[in-house]
Order: sequence, then C-alpha cells, then structure tokens
Amino acid sequence: MTIAISLPRLRANVEALSRFGRNPEGQGITRSCWSPAHEQARAWLLGKMKDAGLETWVDPAGNTFGRLGGGGPAVMTGSHIDTVPQGGPLDGALGVLAGLECLHTIKQAGRATRRPLTVAAWSDEEGRYASLFGSRAFTGKLDAASIPKLAAADGERLVDAMARAGFDALEAPRAKCDPKALSAYVELHIEQGPHLEAAKIPIGVVEGIVGIRRYRLTFVGEPDHAGTTPMAWRKDAFLGAAEYALRAREHVVRKGSGRSVTNFGRIELAPGVSNIVPARAIMLQEMRELDGRILARLDRECLSLARSIARRRKLKVVAEPLSRTEPARCAPRVMQAVVAACATLKLRHRQMPSGAGHDAQNLASVTPAGMLFIPSRGGRSHRPDEMSDWKAIERGANALLHTLLDLAG
Amino acid sequence: MTIAISLPRLRANVEALSRFGRNPEGQGITRSCWSPAHEQARAWLLGKMKDAGLETWVDPAGNTFGRLGGGGPAVMTGSHIDTVPQGGPLDGALGVLAGLECLHTIKQAGRATRRPLTVAAWSDEEGRYASLFGSRAFTGKLDAASIPKLAAADGERLVDAMARAGFDALEAPRAKCDPKALSAYVELHIEQGPHLEAAKIPIGVVEGIVGIRRYRLTFVGEPDHAGTTPMAWRKDAFLGAAEYALRAREHVVRKGSGRSVTNFGRIELAPGVSNIVPARAIMLQEMRELDGRILARLDRECLSLARSIARRRKLKVVAEPLSRTEPARCAPRVMQAVVAACATLKLRHRQMPSGAGHDAQNLASVTPAGMLFIPSRGGRSHRPDEMSDWKAIERGANALLHTLLDLAG
Repeated sequence: MTIAISLPRLRANVEALSRFGRNPEGQGITRSCWSPAHEQARAWLLGKMKDAGLETWVDPAGNTFGRLGGGGPAVMTGSHIDTVPQGGPLDGALGVLAGLECLHTIKQAGRATRRPLTVAAWSDEEGRYASLFGSRAFTGKLDAASIPKLAAADGERLVDAMARAGFDALEAPRAKCDPKALSAYVELHIEQGPHLEAAKIPIGVVEGIVGIRRYRLTFVGEPDHAGTTPMAWRKDAFLGAAEYALRAREHVVRKGSGRSVTNFGRIELAPGVSNIVPARAIMLQEMRELDGRILARLDRECLSLARSIARRRKLKVVAEPLSRTEPARCAPRVMQAVVAACATLKLRHRQMPSGAGHDAQNLASVTPAGMLFIPSRGGRSHRPDEMSDWKAIERGANALLHTLLDLAG
Repeated sequence: MTIAISLPRLRANVEALSRFGRNPEGQGITRSCWSPAHEQARAWLLGKMKDAGLETWVDPAGNTFGRLGGGGPAVMTGSHIDTVPQGGPLDGALGVLAGLECLHTIKQAGRATRRPLTVAAWSDEEGRYASLFGSRAFTGKLDAASIPKLAAADGERLVDAMARAGFDALEAPRAKCDPKALSAYVELHIEQGPHLEAAKIPIGVVEGIVGIRRYRLTFVGEPDHAGTTPMAWRKDAFLGAAEYALRAREHVVRKGSGRSVTNFGRIELAPGVSNIVPARAIMLQEMRELDGRILARLDRECLSLARSIARRRKLKVVAEPLSRTEPARCAPRVMQAVVAACATLKLRHRQMPSGAGHDAQNLASVTPAGMLFIPSRGGRSHRPDEMSDWKAIERGANALLHTLLDLAG
C-alpha cells in the first residue's frame, strides 16, 4: 500500500489552529503576526511539531521550524500561520499543517530520506507590518535600516509588536539562511482563484509567481464651483482618473499576456464635496503578470496612457511607485517532482501562474522552489468563507507528501 | 447730478467686515453662521445700520434687518454675512453692504420713496447647518420638526450653535414673514462664474436660479482577490461608477439645455485596499439646470443610464436622493427694473441664469424677486482669492441703487 497522510489528523489540526484568533460567528479569523492569538498559535504549533517527533526552533525573524532527519541540505516545505483580518482557515495554515502532516507521516512510516526535511511557518506573510517579512529575512532580502520604520496601517510599529511577543526586531536580519543548507522548497496553498474548481482539476502545478507593480496616481485639476463653471471650462481630476481606469483596464486585458491583471482598489477626491469640481483624484493601481518583460511593457504603456489622458484634459498626473516585485519562476526540478507525484497518485493537474504573492517567491532566490495549488471553493480567499473540500485537501497533502519524498530522495 | 453710492464708504465697510473671521495670510475668511466671528460681525453690522439711520431688528431665525421709511409693503434687498470655510470677502457680504450703502445714500440724499426699503442679512446661507436657513425660515419653508436634527458635517448641532449665540433654534419658524408686507426683493451678488468677465459685461440680469438634484449613487459588485480573479470574472463597482460618471457627464452636456451642468464631487470605494476588487463605489452626483422640465428629464435619463451600465456589468446600483430644489424664475418686474437701472447708468448687461443657489430663490416664493450679478475675477468664489474690481463693485452698487429706487417708486 502506498504511503498516505492521515486526513483525520490533518483536519483536526486545521480545526484546532483555526480557533486561535477566531472572531464571533461569521467574522472569520483574525490572527495577525505577533498578536497574542498568533503567539498562542505558534506555541501550539511547536507542541504539535514536537509530538510529531520533529526537532524545533524559532529564528530571530520569528520563523518557526520543525525538522526531520540529519545533516546536509534540507528539502523544505511550509507557509504561514498569520491571517488577514477576518480571514479564513486555510490561507497559510494549510501549507504549514499539511507540511507537518507529511513529516509526521514519513516519521511514523519509518521512511528514511536521503536529505533532511524541514517544515517552516514564515512570519507576517500577510504583511500587517511588512509583507513576506519572515521569508525576506530568511533569504537575506530584509533591509535592516528600514526595520525601525515598519508599521501597521493603524500606526503600530513592528519593533513594538515584536517586543511584545518577546522578539528584538533589529535582530531579524540574523535569520538569514546559508543557501548551501537548502536543497529545495515546495509550498502547498489554496489557489485563491476559480480556475481549478471550474476545470475540476485537483492539483495546480505553479509555474511562477506574478510580479506586482503598485502606483499611487494623482490627477490634478482645478477646484471650480460646480454650479457656475461651464462644463467645457472644468479641469475635473476625477473624470481624468475615471477615463484612465477604464482605458488602462482595457489595455491590460487586450495587450497583456491574457492573464495580466490590474486593479484600482482605492480613490479619493479633494476637496471631496458635492458642489466643487474635484481638483485632485488620488488613486491606487496595481498590475500583475508572470512575464517580467510584459509587465514592464504594460507598466510603461499605462503610464504613457495616463499622461496622454491628463494632457488632453488639461490635467497634471503624478505617478509614485509604491512597490515593485519581479516575477519568480518556479524551478523545473520542483515542478517535475509535483507532476511525478500527481502521476503516482493518478491526479489530473494543470500548470498555472500564482496571481498572489507567496513566501515561495523569496525562497526561489536561494534554492529551487515551487508550489502546488488545490481548488478554492468559489475561488474565495481572504474572507471567512474561504474553504476547500476535505477530499481536495487530502489529495493536495498526499501530492505534497510524494513531492517531498521525490525531492528528498 | 445723478444720485450715486460712496465707493470709499462701501469699500471701507467691505474691508471692515472681512476682518471678522480672517484666517492667517492666504487662508481667507472663515465666518460660519452663529460662530463668535459671525456674531461679532452681526453686532458690527447692526451698528453700521444704525449709523446709516436705519431702524434695526433681528428675527428668531437670526436674520438681521435694517429699514428705511414708514409703513406698507417693503422693497427688500440683502444677502448674507456668513462665509464658507476659507472663503473670500465678497460672497454674501457684498450684497448686504451694497444694500446698506444704497439705503444710506438714499437717506443722506433725503430721497423719499413711496415704499419703505429694507436690507437683510439672511442666516446660514452657506449651510454649515442647513443651506439658506434664514431665508427658508422667513419664507415659511422651514420644517420645524427637522430643526433638532440639523447639524454640521463635524457633528455640531444647530440647536447648540444657536444657543451659544443666544438664540432658540426651535423658535426659528416664528421668523415667517407676512407676504403682504413685501413688495419686491432684489439681491446683488458676484457671479461666481467666468461669463461676465470673459464678455467684459458689467451687469448680469439674472433670469432665474437653477434647480439642483443631489444623489448618492452606490454601485455594488464583489470584493474579489485582485491578483487571482480573472479580469473577465470581476464585478468591479469602481469601473461601473467610472463609466457612469463619464457617460452621464456627456449626456448632460449633449442632451441638456447647453447650460446644464453635473458634478461628481466625492467617491469612496470599499473595502478600499489595493489588492481587493472594489465591492462598493459610493459617489455623490449633482445636476443643475434652470428649466425644470429639462432638469427632470436629465434626472430620469441619468438614473436609467446608471441602471443600464450596472446591468451590463453585473453590478447593482442604488440611487438615494439627497436634496432637490426646483428652479426659481426671477420676476419680470424686477428684471425690468435692473435693465432700466443699467440704461440710466449706461451699463451693458446680459441676461443669465444663476448656477449657484441664493436666498433670492426662497424670496421668489413670497414676492417678486430677482438678482443682479457683477463679474467675479477669474470666475473664482468660495476661496481666499475671490474678488471683483472696485470699479465693478461701484457699478454694481449703483445699479442696485437705481433698481431699488425704481421698485420703491
């Protein structure tokens, strides 16, 4: 009989972890990194890792590890146990607990692997203070000078949140790994989109994680009286922003890769009253695409479109870059291991990009890295009703198990 | 020699009044109704009225009056002495002080008129608590039951503001006038638009005050993940609102009277973050037009356009009416008196609508009412650099003087 994970044990762990930070009925789970709920969850996780016979430790960035096996470069898996506010039970948690379940299964089965296996829970993936903080620290991407300035949207500083949890934020860069100690990284995650469910395909073999550009675009016009200024004389910043949003959306859809996306999630007008023509429209735009050249081209073309619309409407436009991550391609060796695991388990699979950011994109810079997805019910995530079927979770965890066994040899 | 107002005295009064509520350099004048600055200005104004030989009183709505002459239906003029936050020295103040100057001039010249003359400063025209409050009370349009609920945007209640100034807000409806005591009303105001200056015409004869419709439009979509949801699957409330704003603007320009205007002064998105597709876009729209039938038609057509855009984009849209004022036509008798005054003074004039609301629109419901405009420098108003030339102010005040003499017989 083929080796297989225990769904009852995995399900019990998913349900147990979901109780830390659980909000009143219908409002999901709020388990921000460094919060009391998160720190209780970390203590629970360390206990579960020890129960599974793993060696455990926590690094200076708060990343939590459980290891099975001896020396040499490790095959790693994992994800994160923090959530967005009012999030669901699977985003992050599934990757950590399925990884733990795989190591537990291998340990119990007495299967020897050539390479050691490590499961990690990376700190603050959701970025209450700084997105992908733990995996950035681990892969040497953390700018030490920026740490004192990192803060949540509500103003709470990272240094204070970490101190409350017993950590010294300024020490976080010491979490940096030695890439020679790593052999590969593979992460299981829910898709967070509708493709797998719609196609009835149980496993997504992730070919890469999209790059993201974020801008703050400010269109500037004139605050004229909205009753007495003739329509043709107005310099309406909002109408400029509105035209740009509609046309940039069409441009990304028509001239992108076919999978390129863009979003305008926020806009504010000033002075922001009914009877004054908007003098300023401040809008956030983000763009995502797996192909770095296409992303760079869309980026240039959209900015040029914004300028031409502003010029025609006698407005000014300023584009401030807010963040910029480049696409991360998954390693062929890891993708092949996932495909082989699907073959072993007779599971259909489909190659696909990840439209969301993940810790795997940081790991990809230090070791061959990849991901596998399972379907998200209704494509939903980052909300209380985020779910997948338990059968689908079992298939995903077993695919992860065979991928790890393949990579660890 | 023709009777004429004293520009030095009028200018001194405009400059003196502009000191009440004066902000630091460049930030204009903030003299909200019932504020300490406003109450000091009222006391100063009552003193100036008495100096001019007028009989003075303040009614229960805080309207301040100065009267010249005996019994019988009065010819009234006036405007308001409250300002918007960071406003200028002329909006409202000019109409009150030019009216006072006219009565002072008539009194000094010993000119007897058949009808008495009254100058009024109406309360809270700018609507910190309720637009056109004083003239609504005077013309019997104030809903007594609503008074306890009236409050400023910052939450301060009218009853508290009036109590601080020594008034009982619940008594304000007692300001209601007896229409039989009125003969006519004429108000001098800056244009607040660019037409007169651009055409180099000193006097605008107002033919009516536009009606205004204000709506809160809410487009409702779905809060999907902005990275993982295919573009074609999204129900983006912002893009629906953006398309509607652009198309409604075109519709009002092309299918309106040629002078119809519309504005979208405020929009908010929810949840309002970069990486979530906007699920709600809440937008304010207002529309203004002098012809009541055209206004009603544009209103219907825009709502129908909003619904058709929402339907095509698989969104919902809800339109909540916020306020609705009907157009007010100026009385031919008052317009003729202004035209005759221009003829006497050899001033060019042009008929035009008022795109902004004024107390005259309330007076129009109880007595023949009209307005005359003088040019606004650069079309600017409601801002610190709101101005007109002193020569233009002198022409306007003299046109008001001859209009009042004509109406008062």
